Amino acid sequence: MQPINPTYTQTFPPPVMEARRWIEGKVFAPEKPLIMLSQAAPVDPPPPALARAMADALIDDPAAHLYGPVLGLPALRAELAAQWSASYGGSIRPEQVAITAGCNQAFTAVMSTLAGTGDEVILPLPFYFNHKMWLDMEGVRSVHLPTGDDLLPDPDRAAALITDRTRAIVLISPNNPTGKEYPAPLLRAFLELARAHGLALILDETYRDFHSGTGAPHDLFRDPDWDDTLIHLYSFSKAYRLTGHRVGAAMASPARLAEVEKFLDTVAICPPQVGQIGALWGMRNLGQWLAGERAEILARRDALVAGFARLPDWQLLGCGAYFAYVRHPFARPSDVIAQDMVDQAAMLVLPGTMFGPRTAQGGTGQAETTLRIAFANADTNGLHEVVTRLAALDL
Amino acid sequence: MQPINPTYTQTFPPPVMEARRWIEGKVFAPEKPLIMLSQAAPVDPPPPALARAMADALIDDPAAHLYGPVLGLPALRAELAAQWSASYGGSIRPEQVAITAGCNQAFTAVMSTLAGTGDEVILPLPFYFNHKMWLDMEGVRSVHLPTGDDLLPDPDRAAALITDRTRAIVLISPNNPTGKEYPAPLLRAFLELARAHGLALILDETYRDFHSGTGAPHDLFRDPDWDDTLIHLYSFSKAYRLTGHRVGAAMASPARLAEVEKFLDTVAICPPQVGQIGALWGMRNLGQWLAGERAEILARRDALVAGFARLPDWQLLGCGAYFAYVRHPFARPSDVIAQDMVDQAAMLVLPGTMFGPRTAQGGTGQAETTLRIAFANADTNGLHEVVTRLAALDL
Repeated sequence: MQPINPTYTQTFPPPVMEARRWIEGKVFAPEKPLIMLSQAAPVDPPPPALARAMADALIDDPAAHLYGPVLGLPALRAELAAQWSASYGGSIRPEQVAITAGCNQAFTAVMSTLAGTGDEVILPLPFYFNHKMWLDMEGVRSVHLPTGDDLLPDPDRAAALITDRTRAIVLISPNNPTGKEYPAPLLRAFLELARAHGLALILDETYRDFHSGTGAPHDLFRDPDWDDTLIHLYSFSKAYRLTGHRVGAAMASPARLAEVEKFLDTVAICPPQVGQIGALWGMRNLGQWLAGERAEILARRDALVAGFARLPDWQLLGCGAYFAYVRHPFARPSDVIAQDMVDQAAMLVLPGTMFGPRTAQGGTGQAETTLRIAFANADTNGLHEVVTRLAALDL
Repeated sequence: MQPINPTYTQTFPPPVMEARRWIEGKVFAPEKPLIMLSQAAPVDPPPPALARAMADALIDDPAAHLYGPVLGLPALRAELAAQWSASYGGSIRPEQVAITAGCNQAFTAVMSTLAGTGDEVILPLPFYFNHKMWLDMEGVRSVHLPTGDDLLPDPDRAAALITDRTRAIVLISPNNPTGKEYPAPLLRAFLELARAHGLALILDETYRDFHSGTGAPHDLFRDPDWDDTLIHLYSFSKAYRLTGHRVGAAMASPARLAEVEKFLDTVAICPPQVGQIGALWGMRNLGQWLAGERAEILARRDALVAGFARLPDWQLLGCGAYFAYVRHPFARPSDVIAQDMVDQAAMLVLPGTMFGPRTAQGGTGQAETTLRIAFANADTNGLHEVVTRLAALDL
C-alpha cells in the first residue's frame, strides 16, 4: 500500500454516506414507506423560472461556460454585500465577500488560512461533522465546548479553553445539528471574547433564511470593525434549492480573502458559473418565494413541536431551521437506536454519535442519548406520521 | 489582525491573477491589440449541442439541481473507466474512478491523503504553480528535480532525492508549463522507481487529448497492479471547453478513493451536477469533434515551431499541448521581460519565475531565462503575428 497521511485514517468516513449504507438493499412495506430524515437538503428542484434562467444562460452567455474570477462573479459579490448590509443593518463591502463552491468549501478555505498542524479550534458540542473532519485531516486539534440540555455554548466555558494555540471559535446559528437559534447577546459575547483574545469568530449562517425571528438575527455586522474578528459563512443551497450547483459565500476582511484566494485558486480555480448565475437570479427575483418557503418550514417546525407533546418519554432539546435535536428514551446508544429505527419504524435519522465524541463512561452522554431529525422535507402530514411511528417504537 | 496560518503567507499569490494585473488599465493600439497567451484555457464556449444538452437537463432532470454522490455520477465514472480501458489498453474499473470539481481539486484531494506537514513530494522543474502552492500551504516540502534543456525529468536524479519523508512523485504529461510529451519508457521508469520505494506516482494528464502521438501515450495502465502506485489525473475543461463548470477526475485504488472521499465530502460535498452531465454527454457524442480540435491544436503547434525557426536568438525548448516553453535572448530576468512585453509587444505570457525558484547566483537560471507561451487560443495567423512581434522586441 502507498503512503497514507495518518490524519486521514484517524478521522471518520462521511456520516451521510455511512447512514445511506444502513438502508441499502432494504425493502420497505408499501403501507409504511421509508421516511428520510437524514440529510439537510431540499429534495425538490428550484422553481421553474430559476431553472429556466440558468438554462438560458447556458445557451445565450458564453461566459457561463468559462473560467471566472477566483473569488466569484463581481455582480454576485455586490448583490450579497448590498442585501446583507440592508438585512443586518451594517456595512458589508463587495471586497469583503468571496463566493465559494458551497459553504463547506467556504469553511475549509477560511479555516486553512487560520490554523495549521498543532493549532487549536474551539467547536461547541454537538459539532457539524464536516467541520470536525476537516480539522482532523489538517492536523488541527478540535477543542470541544460541551453544552447542557439548552444546547447553547457558554462564553465563559469557552474562555477557559483558550490557549496560545487557539486560532478560532466556530459557531453555527441556526444550528446544525440542533436547530437552536443563538440569541443575539450570546453571539455578541462570543465576538467580544474572540476579539479580546485575537481569535477569529467563524459564524456559519447557512440556515439564516429559515430563522424564526423577524429582523436581523444579531448585531455583529453593525460593528464598523466587524471584519477584524468575524468571518461569516453562507450557503445558497438551502434557500434556492441549488445543492447540486455548489454555491456558497464567505464574508471577511479583504486581507483574509487575499489568503482565501490562494486556497480557492488551488482547490477550485473558480466557483461553478451556472450556480453563481442561478444564485444571483434567485437573490434578485425570489424574495417573495423564499418568504413562503420560510413560512412553510416554520409551520413544519410548529407541527413537530406539537407532535412531541404527544411523546412524554422523548425530550425535544432543540427545534429550528431544518432540524430537531431530541433525546430518545432508550437505554442503548444512539447509533444502535438509529439503525434499529430503520427496521422498526422505516425512518432514517442520524445519531448523536455522529456529532460528538462518545462518553468514556458508557452510554449516558449527550452523543449516545440524542438523535438529529432533519424534518424540513416532511410536510405536516408526514410529521404526524413520524411522531406516530416514534410513539410505537419498542427498542 | 487575526491569526494567519504561516504556511499561507509563505506561498505566493495566484500567478494568473498577478499576470492579469500587469495588463489592468492598459490601453492597446487598435492596429496592435493585446494577444493573451497567459492562461491555459479555451476562450470559446462548448459546441452548441453540448450547451443545449446541459440546458435541457436543467429543465427536464430535477436531479441536475440536487446533491449527488461524493465521488461523482456512477454513469460518468463508468464511462471514463470504459473509454480509458480501451484507449490505454488496460483495465480500469468504475470504482477506481472519482469525479472531482476540476483537476486542481483532484490533485489537492489526492495529495492531502498522501502527505502532511513535514512530508516531502518530488516536483520536476519547471513545476505547475498550483501544485507548488498546495504543497506550501499544507506544510509539505516540495523537493525540486531540476531538468536540463530537454526539460525531461531523470529517474536517477529523482532516486537520489528520495528520503524517508518522501511520499510521492508528481509528473505532468503533456507537460504544463513546458508542452513536453514524456516518452512512454520514461514514465515506465518512474512507475518502477516509485513502486520500488513505496511511493505514489501522480501522473497529471490534463492535456492528453492533445498529445501529438497516436495510440496510448504510455503503458502504465496495462500493468494489472497499476493502482498500487499510479494515480492518474484528468480534466474535462480543455477537451470539452467546460472550464466554468469544474469537472475533473482521479483514478486510483478504491482504498485511496475511500480517503479521497473524506476530503471531497468536506471540501465539495459533490462535483457540480451540470458539469458532470455535460462531461458525460461530451464523452458519448463529441469524439469526432474532439479529434478535429486536436488536429487544429497540432496545426498551431506546427505553425509555432516553423515561426521560431525565424527567431535565431530564441530557443524553443518545448512545444506541445497548449504550451511553448522558450528561452528568451535578453539579459534581464523573465518576470521583467514578461512585463516589458506587455508594453512593447502587446502580448501577455508568463515568466519562468512563476514555475520555479530563482537562481541564487542571479539571472541565468532556468526560471529567469524562460517564458511560457500558452498558444492554443491563437490561430495560425495570430501565431505568425506573435513571432513577428517577438522578432521586433528590443529589451
